[in-house]
Amino acid sequence: MFIARVNGTVVTTQKVIKMTGRKLLVIEPMRVDEKTKSLAPTGRCLVSVDTLGAGTDDLVLVTQGSSARLSEGNSDAPVDCVVIGIIDTVNAVGADIYKKDK
Amino acid sequence: MFIARVNGTVVTTQKVIKMTGRKLLVIEPMRVDEKTKSLAPTGRCLVSVDTLGAGTDDLVLVTQGSSARLSEGNSDAPVDCVVIGIIDTVNAVGADIYKKDK
Amino acid sequence: MFIARVNGTVVTTQKVIKMTGRKLLVIEPMRVDEKTKSLAPTGRCLVSVDTLGAGTDDLVLVTQGSSARLSEGNSDAPVDCVVIGIIDTVNAVGADIYKKDK
Amino acid sequence: MFIARVNGTVVTTQKVIKMTGRKLLVIEPMRVDEKTKSLAPTGRCLVSVDTLGAGTDDLVLVTQGSSARLSEGNSDAPVDCVVIGIIDTVNAVGADIYKKDK
Amino acid sequence: MFIARVNGTVVTTQKVIKMTGRKLLVIEPMRVDEKTKSLAPTGRCLVSVDTLGAGTDDLVLVTQGSSARLSEGNSDAPVDCVVIGIIDTVNAVGADIYKKDK
Repeated sequence: MFIARVNGTVVTTQKVIKMTGRKLLVIEPMRVDEKTKSLAPTGRCLVSVDTLGAGTDDLVLVTQGSSARLSEGNSDAPVDCVVIGIIDTVNAVGADIYKKDK
Repeated sequence: MFIARVNGTVVTTQKVIKMTGRKLLVIEPMRVDEKTKSLAPTGRCLVSVDTLGAGTDDLVLVTQGSSARLSEGNSDAPVDCVVIGIIDTVNAVGADIYKKDK
Repeated sequence: MFIARVNGTVVTTQKVIKMTGRKLLVIEPMRVDEKTKSLAPTGRCLVSVDTLGAGTDDLVLVTQGSSARLSEGNSDAPVDCVVIGIIDTVNAVGADIYKKDK
Repeated sequence: MFIARVNGTVVTTQKVIKMTGRKLLVIEPMRVDEKTKSLAPTGRCLVSVDTLGAGTDDLVLVTQGSSARLSEGNSDAPVDCVVIGIIDTVNAVGADIYKKDK
Repeated sequence: MFIARVNGTVVTTQKVIKMTGRKLLVIEPMRVDEKTKSLAPTGRCLVSVDTLGAGTDDLVLVTQGSSARLSEGNSDAPVDCVVIGIIDTVNAVGADIYKKDK
C-alpha cells in the first residue's frame, strides 16, 4: 500500500458496464521527506476507486493490483487501485508528520 | 488505474490466437501538472486493448494487471492493460483541467 | 502490454523443471519519441518467453504478470513476461513510425 | 521481495472493514551501496502490514502483490504489502553490511 | 523475467512460518549496455528465493509476482521473486556479452 493525497476527480460517461456508479479520485502518491519531517508529493498520478467518502486534500491509504478487488463491492470489477482507509496520523522519522484536521 | 492519452495504434499479424480481433492502442500515461493546472505527458509508452472505440488524442482511463482481464471479453486473454473508460472531465488542484470536446 | 525490441537471447542449463524447452529473448521496452516521430529505446532490459519465432531486431508486443500465463503452453509455468505478437506497424503521433520489413 | 527500513506508523480510523486491527508500518525500500558497502535509503515510501512486531529502524523483508495475501491472516484482506521477516544479517558485496542489534 | 547478479544473502530468524527453510539471495537487476556490449548493474536491489544453488556473482534468471509461486515448493508461500534459472550465456546486440565460468 502507499500514502496518497486526493487531488481531484475523474468523470467517465462512456465506460465498461462494471465501472458504473463508482467514484473515481485523482490521487498523488506521497513520500516521507526526512529533512523537512513532512510528507512530500512524488509528482506521480493515479486514479483510485473510493467508497469511503474521501475528499480533496485528504490523505488516503491505497492498495493496488488484484488486492484492490478484495475491497467490498469490487470483487468482479476491472479495478486495480482502491482507497482502503482515510489516514488520521502518520508518525515517521521520530515525529508526527501528519494529523488530519477534525 | 491511470489517465492516458491515446497516441496511436499497433497492428500485429502474427500473434497468439487469443489476441485475434482486438484493437490495440498506443497510450501515454499522463500526470497532473500543478503549476500549469493541466495534464502533462509522462513520456512513458504502453499498449492497451480498447473495446470502447477510443480515438487518437482521447483521454482514457486504463486498468492494469490481472484486473484488466475482468473487463468484458478479456477473461481468458493474455492482456494486462485495458481501456475501461473514456474520460469526460478531470477536476484537480482546484480547477477543471480537462474537458472532452463534444 | 508494451512495445519491445528483441535484442538477443539467454540460455540457462540449470533451471526449474517447468522452464525446460522455452526460448528466452532479451528484450528492450521502446517508447514513442514525439520529436523524431520514431520509436526510441528506454534502456531497460527484460527477458521474455517467445513461442512466435521472433528474431533479433523484431518489434514485439509483450504482456506481463499473471496475464503472461494465459498465453498458450504457459498456464503452469513460472513466467511473468511473454511475447504475444510480432508487430507489423505502429502508427502514432500522426505518422507511421514503424513498418516491419517483409 | 525487498529490504526495507521501518520509518514509522500510519493510523486510519475510517477504513474498509477488512482492514480492522491491522498494524500499518511506513517503510522505505533500501538498496546496496557498493562503494560504502552499506545499505542506503532509496527515498521511496510504502505502507506495509506487520504481524511480526517490527519496530522503528528495524530492517524487514517485505513481499508485494497477491503474494502478500499468502501471509497468515491476510488471505481475504485488500493488502498488497506485508512484512514477512525481520532481518538479522545482510551479507553483500563481500561484507557483512548489516547486523541487527540484539 | 529479468537478468540479475547475485550480490549476497539475507538471514531472518523471526519470520512468518511459511518462509521457514528458504534461501534468500540479495540480487541486482542487470541491463544490456549497448556501448560497451556488456551487462551493466542497474543499482536496484531485490531479494529472491533460490532453490537452484546460485552463488555470489552468478547471473540468474528471475521471475516476479504471482508467477514466482508457480516454481516448485512455493505455491503456498508469500514470495514474489524467485530464481528460475542460472544463466550460462547472454547473446545480445550482436555479441556474446556473458559466458558463465565453468
